[in-house]
Amino acid sequence: MREFARARDWEQFHTPKNLAMALAGEVGELVAEFQWLTADESRRPAPDELARIRGELADVTLYLVRLADVLGVDLVEAAHDKLDENEQRYAADRYRGSARKAPHQT
Amino acid sequence: MREFARARDWEQFHTPKNLAMALAGEVGELVAEFQWLTADESRRPAPDELARIRGELADVTLYLVRLADVLGVDLVEAAHDKLDENEQRYAADRYRGSARKAPHQT
Amino acid sequence: MREFARARDWEQFHTPKNLAMALAGEVGELVAEFQWLTADESRRPAPDELARIRGELADVTLYLVRLADVLGVDLVEAAHDKLDENEQRYAADRYRGSARKAPHQT
Amino acid sequence: MREFARARDWEQFHTPKNLAMALAGEVGELVAEFQWLTADESRRPAPDELARIRGELADVTLYLVRLADVLGVDLVEAAHDKLDENEQRYAADRYRGSARKAPHQT
Repeated sequence: MREFARARDWEQFHTPKNLAMALAGEVGELVAEFQWLTADESRRPAPDELARIRGELADVTLYLVRLADVLGVDLVEAAHDKLDENEQRYAADRYRGSARKAPHQT
Repeated sequence: MREFARARDWEQFHTPKNLAMALAGEVGELVAEFQWLTADESRRPAPDELARIRGELADVTLYLVRLADVLGVDLVEAAHDKLDENEQRYAADRYRGSARKAPHQT
Repeated sequence: MREFARARDWEQFHTPKNLAMALAGEVGELVAEFQWLTADESRRPAPDELARIRGELADVTLYLVRLADVLGVDLVEAAHDKLDENEQRYAADRYRGSARKAPHQT
Repeated sequence: MREFARARDWEQFHTPKNLAMALAGEVGELVAEFQWLTADESRRPAPDELARIRGELADVTLYLVRLADVLGVDLVEAAHDKLDENEQRYAADRYRGSARKAPHQT
């Protein structure tokens, strides 16, 4: 991604602000793939749907990695830290099987 | 993430559809961190801002990885395939330095 | 909204770019309210859920109206034009009852 | 929107959950229009950009209105209530001109 941006002189556009927007745009496309599917249909997307979803997942990944890179954030380390935090915050025995208690807006 | 969900009996909630929504929610929080910042401010977030941004990047990563996992998609492979595709699609000499030509809605 | 922004000297922050981000952030919060609900649960949210959803719908409306205002776009007119367009594009007899054919990415 | 959905037998797809996703997808497209623009460019979009932005604003409006309708929420009333709330919450003299204090995640 660094080389890709540099070769096109796109580093000027890759501010964290702009990359966060690009990420939001791609996640919008990903969500759109699932919007009319039932829960069950979303578990078993048709081959052409899965191919499109895979492409959108890739777009999201590329912008996420690029955004973390320009900010100097180690994504894997950050994710592990958050997972540890969530382990504490949502004690397994207390939150078992409860959708209403499942985290949102963490 | 698999263990985390299993221990809480949350696998029932982790359909691709729901996880795509959770991902969109977290990306919304990430975007909100940047919304009033100038381009320059977004490059140099204050320490407390960067800590919050790092936390949101982690949330996005966790749901992205979980979504790919339940769909059986290899994120790293998908990202590499997309990067190769973009290399072809946006020839470096043709798209150099042009914001208006930069990809959106890929 | 104009007066609200002016009284706080926030007009400087209310660029279309920033307002689009604020809108995305609020829609993220709205989506998060529904993420773990089944289709049926989403039709009959509990009173406290509905109150939160109503608040998020309000936030989305305020930023949408403000964004349209700073761009000089008449939202009601634009919506009517799009509805007319969709009437043509999705002929009722052809698209009846088909989720896969339902519009996404319009 | 009611008639449009009924004529196509799409009411079955228009659950609040699905409509929230559709709204998020459209907001993603709207954000994408602004992602590489500077603050100043976003204030003066080119005619073709403005036409696309107007179309996305329309899509957002249509799904927002439809979502509010199926939930029985009066959007205008909800927006006025929230504006009153924000008037209290962000006292004009205290929050004047401060981006860092401007609301996010309300």
